Amino acid sequence: MKFRARVLVSLKEGVLDTQGKAVLVSLKNLGFDVVDEVRIGKSIEIVLSADSMAEAEQKVESMCEALLVNPLIETGRTSLEAIG
Amino acid sequence: MKFRARVLVSLKEGVLDTQGKAVLVSLKNLGFDVVDEVRIGKSIEIVLSADSMAEAEQKVESMCEALLVNPLIETGRTSLEAIG
Repeated sequence: MKFRARVLVSLKEGVLDTQGKAVLVSLKNLGFDVVDEVRIGKSIEIVLSADSMAEAEQKVESMCEALLVNPLIETGRTSLEAIG
Repeated sequence: MKFRARVLVSLKEGVLDTQGKAVLVSLKNLGFDVVDEVRIGKSIEIVLSADSMAEAEQKVESMCEALLVNPLIETGRTSLEAIG
């Protein structure tokens, strides 16, 4: 079976998000005074094969630990759907 | 009222995702042979003030056009929630 996982990788609260700050300043310069805060993360979409939803979930969890998420400064949130 | 918008910016189908390809190769090198495809996008979280949900939606739409999304190669998908 094929699955599509989406891993949303965000900087932890309190970690300086320089990219978000830059976008905030740019938005204000463009006249968007209503914006209070901007934070930018990564969205990683993975298509993988697995025998079951549980196995797919476990595989994606291992990928997060091995490569995708730096646990010192980031958190990862995963959602998963079967695509046939 | 305050709103939190999440804009998911993805490369259009057919646009080469070099970052995704690099992660795919790395995952395979780490032994994750089950992975078929990786695509990487940006998740932009914006806290803003607006009088109504409709106004907030329209503001975020304008921000996407002005700065956040490059319509030549990217698509943006927005979700919005009131946070008080």
